[in-house]
Amino acid sequence: MKNKISIIKIGGNIVNDEKALDTFLANFSKIENTKILIHGGGKIASQLNDKLGIKTIMNEGGRISSAENLDIVTMIDAGLINKKIVSKLQGYNCNALGLSGSDANCILANKRPTSPVEYGFVGDIKAINSSTIKMFLSHGITPVFCAISHDGNGQLLNTNGDIMASEIAIAMSKYIDTELIYCFDKKGVLSDITNEHSTIENINYEKYLALKENKTVNEGILPKMENCFNALNNKVSKVSIGDHSMINGNEIFTTLTL
Amino acid sequence: MKNKISIIKIGGNIVNDEKALDTFLANFSKIENTKILIHGGGKIASQLNDKLGIKTIMNEGGRISSAENLDIVTMIDAGLINKKIVSKLQGYNCNALGLSGSDANCILANKRPTSPVEYGFVGDIKAINSSTIKMFLSHGITPVFCAISHDGNGQLLNTNGDIMASEIAIAMSKYIDTELIYCFDKKGVLSDITNEHSTIENINYEKYLALKENKTVNEGILPKMENCFNALNNKVSKVSIGDHSMINGNEIFTTLTL
Repeated sequence: MKNKISIIKIGGNIVNDEKALDTFLANFSKIENTKILIHGGGKIASQLNDKLGIKTIMNEGGRISSAENLDIVTMIDAGLINKKIVSKLQGYNCNALGLSGSDANCILANKRPTSPVEYGFVGDIKAINSSTIKMFLSHGITPVFCAISHDGNGQLLNTNGDIMASEIAIAMSKYIDTELIYCFDKKGVLSDITNEHSTIENINYEKYLALKENKTVNEGILPKMENCFNALNNKVSKVSIGDHSMINGNEIFTTLTL
Repeated sequence: MKNKISIIKIGGNIVNDEKALDTFLANFSKIENTKILIHGGGKIASQLNDKLGIKTIMNEGGRISSAENLDIVTMIDAGLINKKIVSKLQGYNCNALGLSGSDANCILANKRPTSPVEYGFVGDIKAINSSTIKMFLSHGITPVFCAISHDGNGQLLNTNGDIMASEIAIAMSKYIDTELIYCFDKKGVLSDITNEHSTIENINYEKYLALKENKTVNEGILPKMENCFNALNNKVSKVSIGDHSMINGNEIFTTLTL
């Protein structure tokens, strides 16, 4: 285990694009720090839902993760995507280990209360089993997490991948210098969503509050930024947001600071 | 790690039956020996193939595992079934870790040659990474393998679960007293396939050859018995075949000896 760890979350835009994913994984495997990858599922699960005629039930709280939806997410995220990523990383000499939160009890969650809003089989993270994760890392293993956790009583739970990444980073930062990187489809936080060259390179908490107040940044990025500041407030040393080219040396991305 | 290990393979008949699977897992979790579970996929993958209109291509060598078929198997076996088993075992206080052969490079395989018969993405096991498996066991982790391996160059491969179980048993037997148990839908090897009370309780190699010669046992069981004797010939100390009730104390099953 090196003296620094990088926790990297990739979103659906990379996962859904075979070529982008392959490029990302080749670059990820070259990162010399100890590292952990967290991946979302993207549109493949929705497409399979559609093909199988499984309905997406929406309510005021968003999409409900029914038992059927959870099965599809488990197939796609923990199965197809996770194992493709792991086997590709192995091909790049990165000793990856695919994990859901239930595997080796790595991530425990509470099923979200059904009242006032029913979310279905959605879990909010309760505990990261950092001793097991550290044990894997100490053996040169690179954990690759899909965004599924469990309740410890036999139930898998659909979990927010961005929050999973920040919670893992917070847990690891107790033991090792930790950086958290969110890779999504933009080169960082944009001051103008219609202009891809408008990356705001540095955002501190004060600026974040101002951007939120004057609605410069769109609602899609706000929860991600909230996770970033939560991580910074909990001893994660560096947090950044950008697209997957930042893993390959591109210097335009957003760095967040307190 | 205890001084004995049990390697147990369960077939589709258990995996496909939620109640039978739950009973099996409750009993499996109570086994005091160090243990490893290997599971097949059963009919869920075929059903999904059918629902999605993915054709099963057959040739003289049997079913061809096309790229599409492999994706479905990866979804169902490595995803849905593996994670359901792992989360249920966690609920029974068994610290399970779901694995494909690509995870932590546990099982390497060679893609089967395309000539004289094309099998598609099917792998024949080349190496079991016993040091990594032993490392997991030494931390009180129970590996749960689906029958998917990889070639080490980024390609997942569909693999025979019975052979995977015997190869894991052979690899572990170099270090620890190892027993191999095949759980399928019958109470062992039957002398009369139409009579479920005709279990042959003890079969040595001579008897096996005689049963094969006079065609007393059906062709379905012969490859499984071949795996059993291969394991016995390679220092696995005990091999048995029966249904899942043998994990719960039922004493009628078949014991194989050299």
